[in-house]
Amino acid sequence: MIKEKDYFQDHMPGNVCFGCGRSNHDGLKISSYWEGDESVCIWESQEKYQGWKGILNGGILATLIDCHTMCTAMAAAYQAENRDLESQPVYRYATGTISVKYLKPTLNTKPIELRAKIKEIKGRKVVMSCIAKSDGAITAEAEVIAIRVFDSSKDEGSIFG
Amino acid sequence: MIKEKDYFQDHMPGNVCFGCGRSNHDGLKISSYWEGDESVCIWESQEKYQGWKGILNGGILATLIDCHTMCTAMAAAYQAENRDLESQPVYRYATGTISVKYLKPTLNTKPIELRAKIKEIKGRKVVMSCIAKSDGAITAEAEVIAIRVFDSSKDEGSIFG
Repeated sequence: MIKEKDYFQDHMPGNVCFGCGRSNHDGLKISSYWEGDESVCIWESQEKYQGWKGILNGGILATLIDCHTMCTAMAAAYQAENRDLESQPVYRYATGTISVKYLKPTLNTKPIELRAKIKEIKGRKVVMSCIAKSDGAITAEAEVIAIRVFDSSKDEGSIFG
Repeated sequence: MIKEKDYFQDHMPGNVCFGCGRSNHDGLKISSYWEGDESVCIWESQEKYQGWKGILNGGILATLIDCHTMCTAMAAAYQAENRDLESQPVYRYATGTISVKYLKPTLNTKPIELRAKIKEIKGRKVVMSCIAKSDGAITAEAEVIAIRVFDSSKDEGSIFG
């Protein structure tokens, strides 16, 4: 029996985010899931997101990494509390810092693969590393710190709710 | 007599980049100019670029900073060679590394202002700092390293041409 992938973003109702929101119809609509201890995102671009002809814009790559790791931080926090993504309280994360090192051009015409790993979870903070792969090669490496900006048990009325 | 702003991007014909390309009609179409020793970009968002309701997506902010600093690197390199932006050879820059620290939410409903400064120009490398301002407050700080990836005097046929 084939298990369907359980995408983190399917558990974020009302998410209007340009990168990861299911409720943003003009956005990148990324999907992230666990594969062992890594979170994976496979994404296909469109011509408008190029930086040079046939090459993905570096800012869009940063956006993909940013949203993939924020959703990963959420999933990792729930996992650390031994609860599923539909359980309460609801957590949401925003980027504290992101650092991206671009190693080579990322093709805009083939699927892009992101793989993130949790390095540390400490209170409201989740530290992650993430790589981007294109056409079999690693094209970028990133370090990201996510900060929990919403906890439904205490942040009612927050802009991040 | 009022001097019109001389936007860096007006001197990049055929630029299809999502962030800074005049030839990308679905892109962010930023405009950058010198104000003293700082390069400035004022940009107005659209609803689709939000991260949360009314708040700019962090990846789009990184994209703005990325493209603003890459165009600034080009302008600074020409300036360092005492020549104008229409002169030869043509240089283009791509991001080596970008690090963004998010200090507070950036409003998606008011103009966003970026201010970049050159820290170092060394061979093909330009190191810059950049801040983002929203509604009077600094909302993000970035450090960016740009690498010259195209020099029309020797890189004919390059994907970055």
